[in-house]
Amino acid sequence: MTVLQQFRDINQKIKQYEEALAVIYWDLRTGAPRKGMDIRSEVIGTLSSEMFRLSTSQELGQLLTELESEHNWEQLDELNRRLVQETRKEYDRSVKIPPELYQRYVVLTAQAENNWELCKQNNDYASFQPYLEQIIELTNQMIDLWGVKETRYDTLLDQYEPGMTVQQLDQIFGELRDELVPLAEQIASSPHQPRTDFLEGQFDIAAQKEYSLFILKQMGFDFDAGRLDESVHPFATGLNPHDVRITTRYLADDVTSALFGTIHEGGHALYEQNISEQLVGTTLCTGTSMGIHESQSRFWENVIGRSRPFWNRYYRDLQQRFPQLAEIDVDTFYRGNNIVKPSLIRIEADELTYNLHIIIRYEIEKMIFNEGLQAKDLPRVWNEKYKQYLGIEPPSDAEGVLQDVHWSGGAFGYFPSYSLGNMYAAQFMNTLQQQMPDIWQKVEAGELHPIKDWLAERIYQYGRLKSPSELVEQITNEPLNPAYLAQYLKEKYTDIYKL
Amino acid sequence: MTVLQQFRDINQKIKQYEEALAVIYWDLRTGAPRKGMDIRSEVIGTLSSEMFRLSTSQELGQLLTELESEHNWEQLDELNRRLVQETRKEYDRSVKIPPELYQRYVVLTAQAENNWELCKQNNDYASFQPYLEQIIELTNQMIDLWGVKETRYDTLLDQYEPGMTVQQLDQIFGELRDELVPLAEQIASSPHQPRTDFLEGQFDIAAQKEYSLFILKQMGFDFDAGRLDESVHPFATGLNPHDVRITTRYLADDVTSALFGTIHEGGHALYEQNISEQLVGTTLCTGTSMGIHESQSRFWENVIGRSRPFWNRYYRDLQQRFPQLAEIDVDTFYRGNNIVKPSLIRIEADELTYNLHIIIRYEIEKMIFNEGLQAKDLPRVWNEKYKQYLGIEPPSDAEGVLQDVHWSGGAFGYFPSYSLGNMYAAQFMNTLQQQMPDIWQKVEAGELHPIKDWLAERIYQYGRLKSPSELVEQITNEPLNPAYLAQYLKEKYTDIYKL
Repeated sequence: MTVLQQFRDINQKIKQYEEALAVIYWDLRTGAPRKGMDIRSEVIGTLSSEMFRLSTSQELGQLLTELESEHNWEQLDELNRRLVQETRKEYDRSVKIPPELYQRYVVLTAQAENNWELCKQNNDYASFQPYLEQIIELTNQMIDLWGVKETRYDTLLDQYEPGMTVQQLDQIFGELRDELVPLAEQIASSPHQPRTDFLEGQFDIAAQKEYSLFILKQMGFDFDAGRLDESVHPFATGLNPHDVRITTRYLADDVTSALFGTIHEGGHALYEQNISEQLVGTTLCTGTSMGIHESQSRFWENVIGRSRPFWNRYYRDLQQRFPQLAEIDVDTFYRGNNIVKPSLIRIEADELTYNLHIIIRYEIEKMIFNEGLQAKDLPRVWNEKYKQYLGIEPPSDAEGVLQDVHWSGGAFGYFPSYSLGNMYAAQFMNTLQQQMPDIWQKVEAGELHPIKDWLAERIYQYGRLKSPSELVEQITNEPLNPAYLAQYLKEKYTDIYKL
Repeated sequence: MTVLQQFRDINQKIKQYEEALAVIYWDLRTGAPRKGMDIRSEVIGTLSSEMFRLSTSQELGQLLTELESEHNWEQLDELNRRLVQETRKEYDRSVKIPPELYQRYVVLTAQAENNWELCKQNNDYASFQPYLEQIIELTNQMIDLWGVKETRYDTLLDQYEPGMTVQQLDQIFGELRDELVPLAEQIASSPHQPRTDFLEGQFDIAAQKEYSLFILKQMGFDFDAGRLDESVHPFATGLNPHDVRITTRYLADDVTSALFGTIHEGGHALYEQNISEQLVGTTLCTGTSMGIHESQSRFWENVIGRSRPFWNRYYRDLQQRFPQLAEIDVDTFYRGNNIVKPSLIRIEADELTYNLHIIIRYEIEKMIFNEGLQAKDLPRVWNEKYKQYLGIEPPSDAEGVLQDVHWSGGAFGYFPSYSLGNMYAAQFMNTLQQQMPDIWQKVEAGELHPIKDWLAERIYQYGRLKSPSELVEQITNEPLNPAYLAQYLKEKYTDIYKL
C-alpha cells in the first residue's frame, strides 16, 4: 500500500466516525428517549475519542510528513494536496490537546446539549450555569494549548472562519452597524408600516409540513438523499452527499416560522447534497467554512425566500392550504413577512436586526474569553445588551440567554459566521444577477433549479477544496465586502417602506 | 488500574460500540435516505471491525487469562465471574475469524439487509439471490473456522441458544408436531368455526397508533426510556435499559396486525428495560438467549394479548376507536382473533400453525448447511414445504422466501428460537398461574403490572447473569418441557372450538 493510500484510508476512517457521530447526534435531537441521554453521552465520548486518536496518531503525523516531502508532493493532484494541507492544519491543532481533556470536553458538551433543552423549557438558567462554567473553563484550557493568537477569542474564531480576526470583525461589524442603524431609524419612522395581523392565528401543522416539503422539493432538495424532521432547535447535518438531514419546528400560531426555518436549513442541505462525488469519503466532503455555509442558508431563506418574486409565484400555494389568507393580497403578505422590528429570538429576527443579535453574541463571547466575564453574569449582560442594541429586554432566560444551543455545544466563535453569511450571500447575489439577468423572472416562473445549479457549479461542488476567500474572489472578483449587504438591505427596505 | 478494571473498561467500550451500531441500524430501518445506504454500510463495517478488534485483542486475551487464575478468580464476585466466562466464550469464538473475513461479512449483510426491503417490495428474488449466496458462503467459511460440532448447523444454533443441538431440536419439534397435528385436524373439522369477517375493513391508522401506544403503556413500557416507530419488518432493539426501541407496521385493512406486533415487540422491550442497573455498561446487559427473549415477546403477544380476560378488559377501548366493531361482542372478537388457519406469513400466523412455519425454516436451514442446498433452489424448496406442511403455496416470493429479514442479516440458526420461546412461555405461565392464582382477575381488571413485576424479578433483571437452562430450572423446577405448550394450546382451542 502506498503512503497516499495509507493516508487516504485513515482519512476515510475519520470521516466514517464523523458519520456515525452525526447519526447519533441527529438521533439525540430528534426524539431519543430522555433517560438514555447519559449513557449516550458516554458512547459519544468513546467514539469521539477514537476519532481523536486517529486524527492525532503518530502514524498520521508520519504519513503527512512523507507526503509533504518534495518528491511525493509533486506527484499529488490538487485534491490530495488540499487534503494533506487541511489534515496537517487539523493535526497540528489537535495534537496539542491531551486525549483526556478532549474526552472530558466531548462528554460534557453532549450532556450540556441534552440538558439545555430541558433547562430552556423550564426557564432554568441556574441548572444550566454549571455546564457553561465547565465548558468555558475547558475551552480556556484548550486556547492555552492551541496558543493565543492576537487575542484569546481570535483562537476560537479561526476554527469556524479560517483567517478571520477580532480586528477584522470589529471593523466589518462597525461598518455594517454604521450603515444599518440609520436605515433602521428611517424604517421605524416611515409612515408605511406593513400589516402583520394576518400572520397571527391558527395554522394547521399538517398543512405547514406539507407546504414545507413542497418548497423543499421546489428548491431541488433530493428526498432520496435526505429527510426533514422536527426538533426544538432546527439544524442541518450532512452525513454525506447522499444523506443530508434537516429539521424544523412547527408553530401552530405562526404560518411562516417553520417555513423559513425549512428554507434556511434547506440551503445548508443543498450545499451538502451537491458536493462532488470525488470528495465522498474524505474530510473535504463538507462546506468550506461556517460563514460560507451560512451564506447558503441565508441566501435561500432571505434573498430568495423573502423576495417579492418568490411570493408572486408561491403565495397561491400557501393560500390554498390556509384559507384564512384568501383576503390578503401578495403585496401585503410580502411586506408583512419583511417587517423590521426589534425582537427577542435571533432565529425569528428580520434580516436587518438579525445582525444586531449577532453583534450581541459576538461582544459577549469576546467578553467571556478576552475579559473573563463569568457564566453567572451572562443573563445580566445578555439582558443589558438587548436593552442597549434592540431596546427590549427578555422577560425570561428561556427567551434570552438560553435561546440558542450553540454554547451548550461549546461552539464559541461560531455566531459571527451568521452575519458573515449574510454578507457573502449579498455579494454572491450581486454577481449572480449580473450573470443571470432574468433571475427574478425565473423565480416568478417557479424555476429555482437554475439558481441551485449556478451555486452548485461555483460553490457547492468544491466542498472544502477551496477556501472561503478563494471562493469569494473567484466568483465575485473581489474580497469580502460588507457594502453589498448594506446596499441589498437599503434597496429592499426603500421599496417596502417607501423611504 | 487493576486487571479487573482494565477488563471492565474494554468490555464497556465494546458495549458502547454495540450501542452506536444499534442506533445506526435502527436509523437504517426507520427511514434513512435510500441513497445513503452504501456509504452507511461502510461505516457499519468500520465500527464493527473496531468492535471486533477490541473483542479479539491480545490484551483482552491476556486479561482473561489473568482473571481466570485461581488467585484472581477467588476475589471476583458473581457478576464479574459471569462476565469473564461469557467474554471468554465469545473471545475463543471470535478470535478464530480473520478480521478481513469479519469485515466482509458485516458490510455484506448490511448491504443485503438494505436491499432485501426493495427486493421484497419488487418481488425480485433474482436480485436478492447473489447476496444470499455470498452470505451462505461466508457463513460456511466461519463454521469451518469455529469448528463443526455434531453437524455444521449445530455450530450455528449454539450462537442463539447456547447448548441447543440438532438432535435435541429434532426431538422437541418432533414431539410438538405429534401433539399439534392431530389438534389442528380436530380444529379444522370442528363445526364451531369463529367469525372473522369483522376483522376486515378500513381501520384508521392514526387510531391504530393511538391504541398501540395505549396498550404499551398498560403493559408498563416506559416511554421516557423507549420509543415506538414504524418499519417494514417490526423489531426491538435495546441500546441500554434506558433506551429501548420497538417498531411496528400499520395496515389500514387490518385492525389487529400492528397491535399484536406492538405487544410482541413490547414484550422484548419490557425485558430490556428491566435489566438490573448493575449490568449497565457491560455485555451482560441484554437478554440471555434468543429463545428466552422470544418467550417474553410471545408470552405478552399470545398468552396475555390473545387471552379472553385481556379482551374482557381492553375490547371496549378498541370499540371506542373503531365504531364498526360496535355490533361485535367480545366473545366473537376474541374467537376471531384466535382462528387457526394455515397462512403464508409467519408473523401473522396463529399460535398453533406458527410452529409449522418455524419447522419449515429450521428444515431449510439444516438443508443449506448440512446438505448443501443452494440459494437458487430456495424458492422452490420453500414453496414445496409450505405445500407439504401447511397445504398452501405462496403466489409470490415476496410472500414466500423473501418475507423475513433474518437471512439477509446472516441470522441462520435464529428461527428455532421462536418456537423455543413459545415453549418457554407456556412453561413459565404454568408456574406463574400457580404462584399468582388470581392472574386472570388481574388481567380483567387491567392490572398488568404485577405480571411484569413477576417476570422482571425472575427473568428480566438478570440479563445474561443466568443461562436459559438456569432460568427455566430455577423458575419452574424442571428443564424445558414441550408438553406445557401442547397443553396450553389444547386447553385454549378446546374452549374456542368447543372440541
